[in-house]
Amino acid sequence: MNRLENIRFVLSNTSHAGNIGGSARAMKVMGLTKLHLINPTDHPSSEATARASGADDVLYHAGIHDDLDQAIAPCTLVMGTSARNRGMDIEVIELQQAAKMMVAAASSEQVALLFGQERFGLTNEEMQRCHYLVRMPANPEYASLNLAAAVQVAAYELRMNWLAVAQQVAEERSEEVPFATAAKMQGFYEHLFQVMHEVDFMQAENQASLAEKLRMMFNRLRIEKHEMDILRGFLSAVNKNIKK
Amino acid sequence: MNRLENIRFVLSNTSHAGNIGGSARAMKVMGLTKLHLINPTDHPSSEATARASGADDVLYHAGIHDDLDQAIAPCTLVMGTSARNRGMDIEVIELQQAAKMMVAAASSEQVALLFGQERFGLTNEEMQRCHYLVRMPANPEYASLNLAAAVQVAAYELRMNWLAVAQQVAEERSEEVPFATAAKMQGFYEHLFQVMHEVDFMQAENQASLAEKLRMMFNRLRIEKHEMDILRGFLSAVNKNIKK
Repeated sequence: MNRLENIRFVLSNTSHAGNIGGSARAMKVMGLTKLHLINPTDHPSSEATARASGADDVLYHAGIHDDLDQAIAPCTLVMGTSARNRGMDIEVIELQQAAKMMVAAASSEQVALLFGQERFGLTNEEMQRCHYLVRMPANPEYASLNLAAAVQVAAYELRMNWLAVAQQVAEERSEEVPFATAAKMQGFYEHLFQVMHEVDFMQAENQASLAEKLRMMFNRLRIEKHEMDILRGFLSAVNKNIKK
Repeated sequence: MNRLENIRFVLSNTSHAGNIGGSARAMKVMGLTKLHLINPTDHPSSEATARASGADDVLYHAGIHDDLDQAIAPCTLVMGTSARNRGMDIEVIELQQAAKMMVAAASSEQVALLFGQERFGLTNEEMQRCHYLVRMPANPEYASLNLAAAVQVAAYELRMNWLAVAQQVAEERSEEVPFATAAKMQGFYEHLFQVMHEVDFMQAENQASLAEKLRMMFNRLRIEKHEMDILRGFLSAVNKNIKK
């Protein structure tokens, strides 16, 4: 399996069709083909097809989603492009480091790189799904990287890292750590929050901030599958034993 | 003198105005400002200005030339983007190596990176002005790198090398994250195991292996103090609400 096939680019709420087409071309030229779109404003469109040029197959096979959780469901590593974490407890790393990590993980796992809406970037909700935020390099006096250009730079850096790994004569065996997927994480959070409500630890007032803190903590951890089973088992046991 | 100011991008016979604007933006976002155009088909144009976005100053100050020799006159190192040397005795190097050489030379010399016409690339005449040809990385099955995208990738690689040389990457100070002490962790584990016993999730038989797995998981996490407070609060709430 080609590692690059395990890396998906997820474009959220893209407003310009040209950027979608440009992104498809930018990806394919670097050997990346998995494009996922969340609520694109204008798709499919002739403009995107024109900009995609010979990469219209990437466009044609793009996954279209209503919400982020669906778009990243099978992924165990989710990164979001953003220069700032807006005070949230998410580590911000440089693109080069991020690409290295993504290529390493992609030997056996599904990986997502998330791009926010052109003007506003990632929402707080979107950031809360990310294990890391990725800072794209830019001139501090003019950091206005166009979306398709950001996709191009990220795709290039991924290809460079992929080539470096591929060149190693003896490839390090991946450790086959089976991390929990985003879908499993989502199920876990729902269970956890439900139990927290039942024991009156989580209330309407503190729900949002508590949920954010818990997501930040567990995303940092990158829970393995068997650990997830333990946590779910514990929550179920609590479920069975609470009063009322 | 900023080394990046000694590196000029020279676009020859560009036919699409959008590519000129896109290139200006792609350059500026990486801190490059010296754009030179040889016989652009359509310049100046509103389309280029629109695509340049906030980089219209790069566009406005671009040098316009009738021929290549004029465009590269002050340069001591000239590189051309092309995957093949068409049998000419010009060394072809990879972009990463080229960027390193250009940044090194730019400490005291003027350097040019040349981009050919969109469809046909560099002419033989143009190649003959080059000290090196630069191979842009690309998927061998689809190597159709758009001109502005090629400019973006080259500008990015130059910026990365410039940052490395100048060592201007401000090292992130460790943020003095107040992690939980070992004693606090021990208290947390005791509390957690006690609750797990009470809900019959932990029993004498599985206690040792479960404790080990949980310790491994939470140690990997390095819990912060405020997160510890949340977890302890949750456990206390469960305590209060269990039957018996």
